[in-house]
Amino acid sequence: MRPATAEDVPAIVAMLADDPLGAQRESPDDLTPYLRALERLVADPNQHLIVATREGRVVGTLQLTIVPGLSRRGSTRSIIEGVRIHAAERGSGLGTRLIEWAIDASRREGCQLVQLTSDNTRTDAHRFYERLGFTASHVGFKLQL
Amino acid sequence: MRPATAEDVPAIVAMLADDPLGAQRESPDDLTPYLRALERLVADPNQHLIVATREGRVVGTLQLTIVPGLSRRGSTRSIIEGVRIHAAERGSGLGTRLIEWAIDASRREGCQLVQLTSDNTRTDAHRFYERLGFTASHVGFKLQL
Repeated sequence: MRPATAEDVPAIVAMLADDPLGAQRESPDDLTPYLRALERLVADPNQHLIVATREGRVVGTLQLTIVPGLSRRGSTRSIIEGVRIHAAERGSGLGTRLIEWAIDASRREGCQLVQLTSDNTRTDAHRFYERLGFTASHVGFKLQL
Repeated sequence: MRPATAEDVPAIVAMLADDPLGAQRESPDDLTPYLRALERLVADPNQHLIVATREGRVVGTLQLTIVPGLSRRGSTRSIIEGVRIHAAERGSGLGTRLIEWAIDASRREGCQLVQLTSDNTRTDAHRFYERLGFTASHVGFKLQL
């Protein structure tokens, strides 16, 4: 597990696109917008874009965002986004290790709460997060601009 | 609608605490952790803690976080947290104006997506967000640390 660099972007985008929902949303043929987004992430100390590697190959990724706030006695929370595991690694326990990394990193950053949203259709993912101790306590709303 | 300052913190915390869920989670008698959290928010250009005022009194608040990312072709998204309306203002349309402010601010920041989570028990809030165009497409998971 290490911070992502520009050299990891092709592998990350390939994983984002190799997904029932991501296939319609990503454009792996043009990496320019992804590289620009990586620059913003790297410049922001509250953003952690992480890759998991095995034998030098990128096999997993997630993004962890640290969000200070006033509610819950001035609690800081973290938000997990963009969790992807390479197809060849699914079922290997790598997803669990990625989320456990994110939980440990959140503790180190002083967070009192970790949160994420998962598309209603990803029922396997829902069971996975519940096994890791998360509670499906909220409804996640999105508005496309 | 304007950015919150330290002088607004007592009124913001009073609104956070005047809520079925917030009543158990907030400590309006000691503002120290809230003031410390405000300092972190003000120092971060991707954080916008906003208050709505009427005749000089704070009557509403929300927090908008700008989150760059790789997924969806390097999209930036925004996350709305901590929406609260003073009890005397509920039903006045102020909630709608606060969320519309957040949507407009998200557009100005170049976001392609606005998202938020709402506790499963807040069914009135769910209808409110759907009226404003949001889709309840996700399950929101939380883990207390």
